[in-house]
Amino acid sequence: MNKRQFKPSTRTKMGETMKRVMDLNSDMGEGFGPWSIGEGADEAIMSQISSANIATGFHAGDPNIMQRMVSYAKQYGVGIGAHPGFRDLVGFGRRDIKASSSELLNDVIYQTGALREFAHWQGVRLQHVKLHGALYMRAAVDEEFSIALIKALQEIEPSLYLYCMEASVTYQVAKRMGHPVVREFYGDRNYDKTGSIVFTRQVGQLDPATVAARALRACTHGVVRTVEGEDIAIDFDSICIHSDTPGALALIKATKNALTSNGIKIASLSEVVPR
Amino acid sequence: MNKRQFKPSTRTKMGETMKRVMDLNSDMGEGFGPWSIGEGADEAIMSQISSANIATGFHAGDPNIMQRMVSYAKQYGVGIGAHPGFRDLVGFGRRDIKASSSELLNDVIYQTGALREFAHWQGVRLQHVKLHGALYMRAAVDEEFSIALIKALQEIEPSLYLYCMEASVTYQVAKRMGHPVVREFYGDRNYDKTGSIVFTRQVGQLDPATVAARALRACTHGVVRTVEGEDIAIDFDSICIHSDTPGALALIKATKNALTSNGIKIASLSEVVPR
Amino acid sequence: MNKRQFKPSTRTKMGETMKRVMDLNSDMGEGFGPWSIGEGADEAIMSQISSANIATGFHAGDPNIMQRMVSYAKQYGVGIGAHPGFRDLVGFGRRDIKASSSELLNDVIYQTGALREFAHWQGVRLQHVKLHGALYMRAAVDEEFSIALIKALQEIEPSLYLYCMEASVTYQVAKRMGHPVVREFYGDRNYDKTGSIVFTRQVGQLDPATVAARALRACTHGVVRTVEGEDIAIDFDSICIHSDTPGALALIKATKNALTSNGIKIASLSEVVPR
Amino acid sequence: MNKRQFKPSTRTKMGETMKRVMDLNSDMGEGFGPWSIGEGADEAIMSQISSANIATGFHAGDPNIMQRMVSYAKQYGVGIGAHPGFRDLVGFGRRDIKASSSELLNDVIYQTGALREFAHWQGVRLQHVKLHGALYMRAAVDEEFSIALIKALQEIEPSLYLYCMEASVTYQVAKRMGHPVVREFYGDRNYDKTGSIVFTRQVGQLDPATVAARALRACTHGVVRTVEGEDIAIDFDSICIHSDTPGALALIKATKNALTSNGIKIASLSEVVPR
Repeated sequence: MNKRQFKPSTRTKMGETMKRVMDLNSDMGEGFGPWSIGEGADEAIMSQISSANIATGFHAGDPNIMQRMVSYAKQYGVGIGAHPGFRDLVGFGRRDIKASSSELLNDVIYQTGALREFAHWQGVRLQHVKLHGALYMRAAVDEEFSIALIKALQEIEPSLYLYCMEASVTYQVAKRMGHPVVREFYGDRNYDKTGSIVFTRQVGQLDPATVAARALRACTHGVVRTVEGEDIAIDFDSICIHSDTPGALALIKATKNALTSNGIKIASLSEVVPR
Repeated sequence: MNKRQFKPSTRTKMGETMKRVMDLNSDMGEGFGPWSIGEGADEAIMSQISSANIATGFHAGDPNIMQRMVSYAKQYGVGIGAHPGFRDLVGFGRRDIKASSSELLNDVIYQTGALREFAHWQGVRLQHVKLHGALYMRAAVDEEFSIALIKALQEIEPSLYLYCMEASVTYQVAKRMGHPVVREFYGDRNYDKTGSIVFTRQVGQLDPATVAARALRACTHGVVRTVEGEDIAIDFDSICIHSDTPGALALIKATKNALTSNGIKIASLSEVVPR
Repeated sequence: MNKRQFKPSTRTKMGETMKRVMDLNSDMGEGFGPWSIGEGADEAIMSQISSANIATGFHAGDPNIMQRMVSYAKQYGVGIGAHPGFRDLVGFGRRDIKASSSELLNDVIYQTGALREFAHWQGVRLQHVKLHGALYMRAAVDEEFSIALIKALQEIEPSLYLYCMEASVTYQVAKRMGHPVVREFYGDRNYDKTGSIVFTRQVGQLDPATVAARALRACTHGVVRTVEGEDIAIDFDSICIHSDTPGALALIKATKNALTSNGIKIASLSEVVPR
Repeated sequence: MNKRQFKPSTRTKMGETMKRVMDLNSDMGEGFGPWSIGEGADEAIMSQISSANIATGFHAGDPNIMQRMVSYAKQYGVGIGAHPGFRDLVGFGRRDIKASSSELLNDVIYQTGALREFAHWQGVRLQHVKLHGALYMRAAVDEEFSIALIKALQEIEPSLYLYCMEASVTYQVAKRMGHPVVREFYGDRNYDKTGSIVFTRQVGQLDPATVAARALRACTHGVVRTVEGEDIAIDFDSICIHSDTPGALALIKATKNALTSNGIKIASLSEVVPR
């Protein structure tokens, strides 16, 4: 069951896919040196979510921030993920770089190891890997890179979850290779009719109630309204709200509240996506 | 005179401490992107040494180079060490930066983890950590930083060797804390009467026979001639010859040959410094 | 007159040195890529000040930000200055790097030229150079570097103002070499009894009224209360309030208002320090 | 076939366009910190060429190297050009980055200004701008960026030459906008039948005699043999031989010798392309 190959119509009745548990993830530690992102609400956000994608230094993040984020995650019992991006601080990892798959894979290994050492140091385990920005989008359409990445993850640690969109090559490859994968719903991004998020460099102010209602509907009815104006089916294991979206903390709190008041538990990945 | 307070054992007569086994280490992978150091003789040097200090990206080294160096080390059975430095590519980590101990420690953890992931990926273990350049010298005189570093290494992996000079605070702290330490003899650097190496940014062309004879004498007689012109006692477990010293490969080969022809085996660290 | 060699007592009566015109400067554009400093109040601050020290990329600032800052400065008629720092983004240029004077000078030339090109492109002239953070403090105590810097400025453009503290080697050297110099009063920093600012990495929330009153007193009475609790004489041509001090815009507005309501005009440098 | 719409003058017979003067350019100073490119033959190459494209720090080059390259260029009477690239040290500016035209233009302005300041400091003028690697190729096909770049150059200094290939959008735009342009022949690269160079990350060892003969034939007969095996017409003002091509110095000397022995003078740009 659940064999949904991007067909937006396999679900006949509402509620059939009603979610009971959900992961809530956010990018954390996306500052650098003296700079931080958004409201500097890292710790507050960490207290709300179940999985943290911690920036690993190439698009954002530095060793001091990483150390702090891991300690917050440990304190609040949040699953720790590496969030590697393109080596492009000035572009925040949001500009595609025409690098080879093997170069990109080495960049991912480097950054993942850097974060894993902080986790290891503090006595916690790495839970997942989620690529950042343009690198996430690159993998989503680049089969060679997705295969190389997932093969490496399996060699490093077969139980390391990989985040992706269901509507991506990454997801297809992960399923084919039997790698544990977490499908995301982007709470603060728009979707187009292909099921892809509409990638943007700048996100404006969003209304918490609207964002929360949209996420809840996706959980309970398995659909999301696209920019083209129609509903498409969507299935996912985790809701992502970016910490650099203006007002991120309020969006996360509203979403979490909408879910939990409707009987959907924010749970750890091992409960949401058993390996 | 020459009160060497760091001597772990009294040496009464020449030859008493005659070495039978010796580690031979060199810094590897100190290029970046399109650039390499010295003769680009990384693989050839790797085939000669027993321990490799692999640059981890802050003063030199990039993920692609690190991946390649680890594979060379694996191929030639060389012990793999992280070689973290100050975040200073343009200065090659040879300029002291007035950073706090905790900032520096996080830099070391980050870089060590990055390299360890490549080792883990290729199925080999990390053997040691050796700080680079000005960071090595900083630890040598900074007790707070040495303590923080060794405490972290013990939390991460108590068996991880740390390289240092015998005439350093780092060595004193490591002995006090019971951490496995590798004392180095710098085959291609000059010593002063305090037992410290004369740190320099630029090393000229050295004569392989002279370097080899000096290293051999240090192994067999436990002494080295200082820049001031007198002999001082020296004790060590490893000989370091830098790969960026002009003609490094020839120096390494000559030194290795001098030692092995005189019955001193180049051996792995576990044999030289049992933990 | 005005020959004040750090003697805190040459001034016999209050009001003798009462200022009529004053430059008001602030560091601008100290973001990088996705990040900005403080409240992102760059344009609002630019509308209040008479001289802008625009970060030039090594400790903060990037080409896009520089282009924008120059256009703001042009729009509000603010004097444009290059604000070069150590090459240390992660440390925000606040950590001394043991680089040679010639390396540092080349860093300054590079950064100054980069900013000057944006000014030239937009049809405005470069007014001044002000070193940032640890580089400013380095010059303040390093005669060799101060001489090299001022000699280079004279070769590049003898009329380019250089900002410094009166209690600095830089000031002494500039006077000796006949280079136009702007002495600063730090509105948001504490002084010690030597007349030096107490350098700090983190500045807390300051009260606008207190900051304004202190600056006004320095203008009207030529004194400032030190951290040791006594008054020292101080003479200056410009008041600096850092844009990364929390609440910078409010501090700047309060200070400006205190001065102008007391008959002290915020004026362009050419009026305050005629060359 | 081979409809060469960029040809400035009809060529009816071989030899008619026989060159009498030719510019010889090379990329200079493409090291960084401790690293240099190729044989470290910068000064020797500088003594052979008429125009130097000096790396400006984003893909290679640092302030110390730039200072040195400008002084070499001054010493040997070589025309100085800024050689800005993508901000991508690890990729040596050879990987396209999906940045906007305005971001790229600001990068170019920044780097150009940085180099111009060194030239200004040493009392020489900037002669030209030549984009590096993937940025050169980007401009070659991106009309919006080429227009923005040339418009900015005209605002900065209308007489600043811009290097490009004849078979490029950059050339078309420059001609249309009346900007002085230098068409290059790549002595050490292959051409395809569209007149574009076959871009490669790695160039093997080339034979100096072959390279020289090919350049001479292009000068005397206006043709080059493509990778597809046929001759195409080519017109140009300058021959480029990259300093990172293995054996660059020998290639440059052989080419220069072939030209001068056949009556073609290596001359300054103002003589080759009068403005």
